[in-house]
Amino acid sequence: MQSFDFYNPVHIVFGEGRIKNLATLVPAGSRVLVLYGGGSVKKNGTLDEVNSALAGFTTFEFGGIEANPGFETLMRAVELVKAEKIDFLLAVGGGSVLDGTKFVAAASVYEGDDPWDILTSFGAKITAALPLGAVLTLPATGSEMNNGGVITRYATHDKLFFGSNKTFPKFSILDPVKTYTLPPRQVANGVVDAFTHVMEQYLTYPADAPVQDRFAEGLLQTLIELGPKVIATPHDYQVRANLMWAATMALNGLIGAGVPQDWATHMLGHELTALYGLDHAQTLAVVLPSMLQVRRADKRAKLLQYAERVWGIREGDEEARINAAIANTREFFESVGVKTRLPDYSVGREAIDRVLGQLEKHGMTQLGEHRNVTLATSRQVLESCF
Amino acid sequence: MQSFDFYNPVHIVFGEGRIKNLATLVPAGSRVLVLYGGGSVKKNGTLDEVNSALAGFTTFEFGGIEANPGFETLMRAVELVKAEKIDFLLAVGGGSVLDGTKFVAAASVYEGDDPWDILTSFGAKITAALPLGAVLTLPATGSEMNNGGVITRYATHDKLFFGSNKTFPKFSILDPVKTYTLPPRQVANGVVDAFTHVMEQYLTYPADAPVQDRFAEGLLQTLIELGPKVIATPHDYQVRANLMWAATMALNGLIGAGVPQDWATHMLGHELTALYGLDHAQTLAVVLPSMLQVRRADKRAKLLQYAERVWGIREGDEEARINAAIANTREFFESVGVKTRLPDYSVGREAIDRVLGQLEKHGMTQLGEHRNVTLATSRQVLESCF
Repeated sequence: MQSFDFYNPVHIVFGEGRIKNLATLVPAGSRVLVLYGGGSVKKNGTLDEVNSALAGFTTFEFGGIEANPGFETLMRAVELVKAEKIDFLLAVGGGSVLDGTKFVAAASVYEGDDPWDILTSFGAKITAALPLGAVLTLPATGSEMNNGGVITRYATHDKLFFGSNKTFPKFSILDPVKTYTLPPRQVANGVVDAFTHVMEQYLTYPADAPVQDRFAEGLLQTLIELGPKVIATPHDYQVRANLMWAATMALNGLIGAGVPQDWATHMLGHELTALYGLDHAQTLAVVLPSMLQVRRADKRAKLLQYAERVWGIREGDEEARINAAIANTREFFESVGVKTRLPDYSVGREAIDRVLGQLEKHGMTQLGEHRNVTLATSRQVLESCF
Repeated sequence: MQSFDFYNPVHIVFGEGRIKNLATLVPAGSRVLVLYGGGSVKKNGTLDEVNSALAGFTTFEFGGIEANPGFETLMRAVELVKAEKIDFLLAVGGGSVLDGTKFVAAASVYEGDDPWDILTSFGAKITAALPLGAVLTLPATGSEMNNGGVITRYATHDKLFFGSNKTFPKFSILDPVKTYTLPPRQVANGVVDAFTHVMEQYLTYPADAPVQDRFAEGLLQTLIELGPKVIATPHDYQVRANLMWAATMALNGLIGAGVPQDWATHMLGHELTALYGLDHAQTLAVVLPSMLQVRRADKRAKLLQYAERVWGIREGDEEARINAAIANTREFFESVGVKTRLPDYSVGREAIDRVLGQLEKHGMTQLGEHRNVTLATSRQVLESCF
């Protein structure tokens, strides 16, 4: 195991009907800005439930945060925060709304000239943030229990990550019932996103970390079991609850503590989303199987462990077992309805050079757990996405 | 899965050489009381390392906290805290020192008449506590990453639990190297203690919580692998590191979130320690196999899951598989050197009535995940400890 720091002070409030707890979770007397996305929380009643719970507070609303939260949009929220002297932010939505709210929390009190610097410094320039809480409606990104976010500047096709101990939610309410009305596409995306989060922290090289390995494998097995079930029986409380908790645990820092991490799949995926508008999870479903294939030598020992412990593959020689594990991964993504080849999304081969150009622009030329995913390797990965 | 709240703000600082981080982890200008136990941290140099890191602070020392931290002893520390206007507590030791330090943190600012009320209210009467940190030297109790403690009043043989969100350590430093010099008996006790902590949260009845089950099973498998290794090769950094992390994860609230919990084994064990002075883990090694045996009907489904997933037992009928799993549990404890029968500790049958009397005095008459472990059931369990 490697040395590490682990710190995660998010208060998780889990279960049916817990939104009413907002009345005591939000500090008394707060001026609260409720942030949300495209409006589904209005249609399905979640926003009404939130507003009922916040009856004792002065509240404001900011809707319209995009699926890939936009810097330009969020800066309008920052203006509202300043104009109305907001002192608590409540995100109601999925990872995009949460990520965006974290950015608003930091940007609203940012003292530098240009809040975009928060992104180009990966969050290092954050010294303070407004307190925030969350009501999660989509299990996927883990944003409800971590301090990070990914923000897009649409004008320049830049999609960048930030993180800071100042931007942990104070609390996150996870009510599985609030996920019943999600469209199947978003549910499937969430399964793929959570699965890939685990893989980025697990499928690297052995680091003598049996607890982290077994936790990661447990999450992968659980997602494999639940993926088809959540599509088939969307109103099954236990399936929804377990999927929600698995997705939260997939990216709250725990399984990544003390082990090497990859994240090259995410970096290539971010560029594909920024350039072509694919859903985040669609990019992961495309890139991950290719990434594992191209880098199978570096990842050999962990691929064999993954094959045996997660998929139960014990037959055949080592190459065959690795092939089967990668094929199973791809089939799993397809089985929940997320396609795994770029042509499935009408993206042509000209994308390869464009993505490589953006990777170079963003300094992403030495990715992965060994920092050996150069642009040449990324090219190989992208080529095998067709 | 059941509804739950999860909150754990402890900053874990893990790895060799991390004690030097105390210089920045303790708030600048603090008057620090360093608390420790029987003095092994003096002999092995850990205390010197701590004092070097705290060179910039005004420090005081309080040694002599017992293996089962005593109310009477701790109240002397409270007097010192008040007399010297201490404003930060640093526990250097194992679970006993940490538990004791948490109690001192709460009792030093307790406004009620009698600090013993902290225990009889199970911590509910705690409204404030001094901030505390920890340098862990013994992986076992998980106290480094939770808010609870167990305190003994020797005059009356009372051993009681308390917990409060005010008594989380601000940080805990886990340096595996600091555990190299532990006596084998303490190491073995730690393995048994951590194992039993997992079992109290796992071996109940199915609650449709696959993440929690798999995390628990991963910890049990890891402890089974590492137990013999840590005895055989005490200076193996990776073995020590993984054991330390497994013990921490065994009782930080995570695997118990959203699932039923038992804890009857601990309640009987506490009385045995308070009356006869057995090590805490010795009482668990004695009681747990008997508890599983006597309550095998209530725990049937989970015992079968435990047999298969943790021990790989797939042969024989259900009764045989359950028998084998319980026998393996007992053999595992014995294999690391912790005996599993009361006569091994020179405790005779008169103990049964004495323990039952104390259980009744402490209101422990409806224990376990179904609250159906009456005094009659506890009697059966105690009888089968011979």
